[in-house]
Amino acid sequence: MSASRSGGTIRAGIVGGTGYTGAELLRLLAQHPAVELVAITSRGEAGTPVDRLFTSLRGRVGLTFVEPAAARLERCDVVFFATPHGVAMSQARELLAGGARIIDLGADFRLRDAAEFERWYRVPHACPELLAEAVYGLPETAREAILRARIIAIPGCYPTSVLLGLLPLARLERERAGAVDWNGLIADCKSGVSGAGRKVEAELMAGEVSDNFRAYGLAGHRHQPEIEQQLRAAAGRAVQLTFVPHLVPMIRGIHATLYVRLEAAAEQDLQQLYERFYRNEPFVDVMPAGSCPDTRSVRGSNVARIAVHRPSRNLAIVLVVEDNLVKGAAGQAVQAMNIAFGRPESEGLTQIALLP
Amino acid sequence: MSASRSGGTIRAGIVGGTGYTGAELLRLLAQHPAVELVAITSRGEAGTPVDRLFTSLRGRVGLTFVEPAAARLERCDVVFFATPHGVAMSQARELLAGGARIIDLGADFRLRDAAEFERWYRVPHACPELLAEAVYGLPETAREAILRARIIAIPGCYPTSVLLGLLPLARLERERAGAVDWNGLIADCKSGVSGAGRKVEAELMAGEVSDNFRAYGLAGHRHQPEIEQQLRAAAGRAVQLTFVPHLVPMIRGIHATLYVRLEAAAEQDLQQLYERFYRNEPFVDVMPAGSCPDTRSVRGSNVARIAVHRPSRNLAIVLVVEDNLVKGAAGQAVQAMNIAFGRPESEGLTQIALLP
Amino acid sequence: MSASRSGGTIRAGIVGGTGYTGAELLRLLAQHPAVELVAITSRGEAGTPVDRLFTSLRGRVGLTFVEPAAARLERCDVVFFATPHGVAMSQARELLAGGARIIDLGADFRLRDAAEFERWYRVPHACPELLAEAVYGLPETAREAILRARIIAIPGCYPTSVLLGLLPLARLERERAGAVDWNGLIADCKSGVSGAGRKVEAELMAGEVSDNFRAYGLAGHRHQPEIEQQLRAAAGRAVQLTFVPHLVPMIRGIHATLYVRLEAAAEQDLQQLYERFYRNEPFVDVMPAGSCPDTRSVRGSNVARIAVHRPSRNLAIVLVVEDNLVKGAAGQAVQAMNIAFGRPESEGLTQIALLP
Amino acid sequence: MSASRSGGTIRAGIVGGTGYTGAELLRLLAQHPAVELVAITSRGEAGTPVDRLFTSLRGRVGLTFVEPAAARLERCDVVFFATPHGVAMSQARELLAGGARIIDLGADFRLRDAAEFERWYRVPHACPELLAEAVYGLPETAREAILRARIIAIPGCYPTSVLLGLLPLARLERERAGAVDWNGLIADCKSGVSGAGRKVEAELMAGEVSDNFRAYGLAGHRHQPEIEQQLRAAAGRAVQLTFVPHLVPMIRGIHATLYVRLEAAAEQDLQQLYERFYRNEPFVDVMPAGSCPDTRSVRGSNVARIAVHRPSRNLAIVLVVEDNLVKGAAGQAVQAMNIAFGRPESEGLTQIALLP
Repeated sequence: MSASRSGGTIRAGIVGGTGYTGAELLRLLAQHPAVELVAITSRGEAGTPVDRLFTSLRGRVGLTFVEPAAARLERCDVVFFATPHGVAMSQARELLAGGARIIDLGADFRLRDAAEFERWYRVPHACPELLAEAVYGLPETAREAILRARIIAIPGCYPTSVLLGLLPLARLERERAGAVDWNGLIADCKSGVSGAGRKVEAELMAGEVSDNFRAYGLAGHRHQPEIEQQLRAAAGRAVQLTFVPHLVPMIRGIHATLYVRLEAAAEQDLQQLYERFYRNEPFVDVMPAGSCPDTRSVRGSNVARIAVHRPSRNLAIVLVVEDNLVKGAAGQAVQAMNIAFGRPESEGLTQIALLP
Repeated sequence: MSASRSGGTIRAGIVGGTGYTGAELLRLLAQHPAVELVAITSRGEAGTPVDRLFTSLRGRVGLTFVEPAAARLERCDVVFFATPHGVAMSQARELLAGGARIIDLGADFRLRDAAEFERWYRVPHACPELLAEAVYGLPETAREAILRARIIAIPGCYPTSVLLGLLPLARLERERAGAVDWNGLIADCKSGVSGAGRKVEAELMAGEVSDNFRAYGLAGHRHQPEIEQQLRAAAGRAVQLTFVPHLVPMIRGIHATLYVRLEAAAEQDLQQLYERFYRNEPFVDVMPAGSCPDTRSVRGSNVARIAVHRPSRNLAIVLVVEDNLVKGAAGQAVQAMNIAFGRPESEGLTQIALLP
Repeated sequence: MSASRSGGTIRAGIVGGTGYTGAELLRLLAQHPAVELVAITSRGEAGTPVDRLFTSLRGRVGLTFVEPAAARLERCDVVFFATPHGVAMSQARELLAGGARIIDLGADFRLRDAAEFERWYRVPHACPELLAEAVYGLPETAREAILRARIIAIPGCYPTSVLLGLLPLARLERERAGAVDWNGLIADCKSGVSGAGRKVEAELMAGEVSDNFRAYGLAGHRHQPEIEQQLRAAAGRAVQLTFVPHLVPMIRGIHATLYVRLEAAAEQDLQQLYERFYRNEPFVDVMPAGSCPDTRSVRGSNVARIAVHRPSRNLAIVLVVEDNLVKGAAGQAVQAMNIAFGRPESEGLTQIALLP
Repeated sequence: MSASRSGGTIRAGIVGGTGYTGAELLRLLAQHPAVELVAITSRGEAGTPVDRLFTSLRGRVGLTFVEPAAARLERCDVVFFATPHGVAMSQARELLAGGARIIDLGADFRLRDAAEFERWYRVPHACPELLAEAVYGLPETAREAILRARIIAIPGCYPTSVLLGLLPLARLERERAGAVDWNGLIADCKSGVSGAGRKVEAELMAGEVSDNFRAYGLAGHRHQPEIEQQLRAAAGRAVQLTFVPHLVPMIRGIHATLYVRLEAAAEQDLQQLYERFYRNEPFVDVMPAGSCPDTRSVRGSNVARIAVHRPSRNLAIVLVVEDNLVKGAAGQAVQAMNIAFGRPESEGLTQIALLP
């Protein structure tokens, strides 16, 4: 299943290409040497050339948005959903039947449990029978599964940063139960405004966001169950996470500051643990001891950078930065596609961060 | 007519207090020692406490937004309209009949000619018979008229900056006809995002505006006829202005860069001309020769700062900065109110700019 | 001791007025009805008119920076030090001898223990004998002491936010020992760039800070001992705080996100606790339950806003916002001066936050 | 002369790689398939790994900064100077003698006239005899010359934008003398902060630049003589340009707003003129009539976008956007290198702009 039907080239379609993750997918796929973009859908912009909406793509993407019904997405080897929850699950059965694989950047296939999905998203799941086979597509934990998957659920932007920061500790837990206090995890996360998508909302106006900083979502954020589900699976035990997101007056970037109480892990060298864990990962960079990575060091690139601090014997502070639209969304989707189709994992993803 | 009906205190109402100019009026009026805020209307937010919408006013403004019909604005000495065009003119006759004076921060009473209003705003004027008596409320040119006016039209934010920058040259023209090329004026203007108001529009989202710069409105901007009308009146002759606005990724501030060809004015000392012209003005600051004022030097204050440059014998470059929400809107409105009601012109307007 | 020597007017001097806290002091004192600014010193800018350095003060502050030796500060009723550590302590004895009171916005008199000062600041303390009488000038905890103090140490910007957020819990601890886990406090704090002062440093350049976010100071921040000292005093027991500051691409504002484990306090109504604790405070605003205050709601004002969340029985999350230059520095200094000289506490401090 | 000495691979050195143009060169050259980076010099950072200074290059650039003397730049096929004026000219003779070609991103070889260089830069020119052979490396006007050049002077960031905006009119002038008023050109230009480089200066601090806008350099900017020199050459006649730069609170991007009086050109279709002129250019995009390009549409890419407006018969307004660090500096340098060494002109330069 790891090759495209058309031989060398991967024929890709995009559903919902008018948001920021859609635009970012277009940026990455237009530069990918093995991908042919065959269709991009939008109800609201059908008939509009893509490069009229996104001037940055002039001369690079010649497609025009089409109505979903006219897109003939069954021709595709892979269909990306850059849509709010609810869209991918409504088209999944038909696309799979036609032989396409699905990479969903939305939330429809992230939670294993349909009831939990319905509790957080307040709609019934349209194809609960597919949840079991869907793969939570964090390449660092699921390479093998992605290779064979028909449905790949790309993690949310916050979950990617929190999971990458905590996975080495989960492995430690597997090796030495009781090393970490899994009931007292704190994830104080900060995101640029593009994390909210290209939604037109009062609180995301430039006049509201600029020169301002605030927390939000303390009553419960939809990324929380997905983080806990994956941590549970990785650590092999129950976990409890306090997750507080904040809005930063910048465009791209997530910074996760993770506070973890250590119990029986006092003598462990965390720096070494992290370096070993990510030693062969092309897109996770463990920084030297003492570092404070900044979000711009990954702006526009698919890399996540991590630093581990140990202010006292019983506390670890893990700092993680990523570009929420790349490693936190579209880049991770392309990375998963590369794996799924047997391409080199870094193909089309070698952009260096834009600094300054 | 220069006193409030209620004796010392000016009873003020605000129509449309949910935008940025409304919020700024509230900030200024809440600190004004002679004003009592009696009502503030909003269709969309009726029933909402003002300080729930604008947290900054907690403990300072106890009012709740009310339906226009319930506001009983006829009780007021003055009613401010912080509304889009079309609202003030629809309520003007009734309010005047009740004895209130009107200070309109919108566009309904800025243009003398109903036909020109209709050409630019594409609606018929609701009370063209009142245009003749309405005063264009730029205090620097209209103090006497403001004192007696029943309707004061507060200039637009761009026009305030352009007019303050060119009025001394208009006086020069009166004294020495032919000094300036009035047909070749160029106003290259730059504004922060709050100039567009608190409208929820895609192109004003933080993700679109931040780290970005662009021109707009080259096909014709509604502030243009108002600038030309006032310049014509001041210079006593026809004028032609090229006006190009740009959007700056900042919240507040307008910077006008004005290019003026000089003809028979070669020996004139422009620095002296400007300093004399504004010598007694409390809110116009002519900077020392060679200065480049920055917008933050007036952020939050009612001051406009001006610098005059003369790169060659035949060219003047005039730089003007103002806070678009204060001297370009709400502050100018309060200044006009002070004049209209015989109060000290600077009362309630002595805030120093916030720097940094 | 609560009156100025000159009768009604307080004669004030400023040492080191070229930084951001100096500029902010000037903004506030220039608008204060009871203050006469008599001198402002700067070695580097002696001879420069204040309003040449800070254009925003044109027409409002007529002083010229003078050499410290020429300032004759002994004429003053009060001398503000807006200087790095080391300056105030070197001039304290002489000024006190001359009868002036000292309000130090730097760090020289914040720590009670000279040894601890020397450990963190790496210089010997110049007048350790004065530490005992110096008052840590957080008005919410030290009104009586401020009234009589000769030396008032204004808290640091971060400490103000953390202390205001935790003081009600400290009182709870006094009443019910064991209510709070004082050894596991986490203060995840975020500050705008003006918190670092007007220092010219590579990492504070606009090209480095804009569209970027990062943590810093994990190896130990000088504000930490001061927070712990005051919490210890308030709670009546040892405390241990993990303090992680972050740099936000904005100018003004601090947002503290405080994580506190609750132990025997499960049935306590924290919202009520906070509202009661701050009920009579003019500059601390406890927001309604469920709120997320934003930093701009206090930009330019002396108000701190606090929200208390209780995501689970055993955890409190306290959000605090303040303007680091006002309530976190110059505004708090003026508030302390008002108290010290028997003036109304809010005098000259009624500016409403600039929004947007 | 159009091939590298080492056959297929171009061996490149960089002098002065610690500024923003140096960092940008590193970003582009590290991704260039035909370039081998052999050395990068810095006096101040000798011994520091490049990726410690620029975290974004971790895993991508393995070099360490070396002392100029130790760099053995004579091994290189090409040496880039990303330095202030004065450095390239001091090393040019020696490098040329060793067989390397020079691409100078600084100002040493931009002006044809050594006396003019000395007037503006206030130092004697170190190798005036080389000025005659140096090529002003704007590819759109100098492809043939670049192919053979030993010294390529990369245009300044502002000049690139202004020249690209005016060159089609210069050709028109060649064809129809008197079409344009070349004595009244106005270039109102706006630049992000990275245009000033990575200099540590008070006025470029984040606290000074953010939420602020101002003009600068009205007394004369060093980019002016270079613009006039090239326009003179293109139009075949004298020109006079008023050039006013402004500082925008953003990181990257230049927006030029050009005002040109038209004389005998009234019936000319400017849109068509521009489209034809740039028809075959890979990096100049003439936008559809009526467009207002935004700077972010080229952020991180080597593309310049141009829109032509004609508000009246006698006036053209040309809008040009570029990324000052790419098409305005490092990207243009790589483009010139590609030409000089006979590589495909777009090689290594196909990055799509980062949006949002």
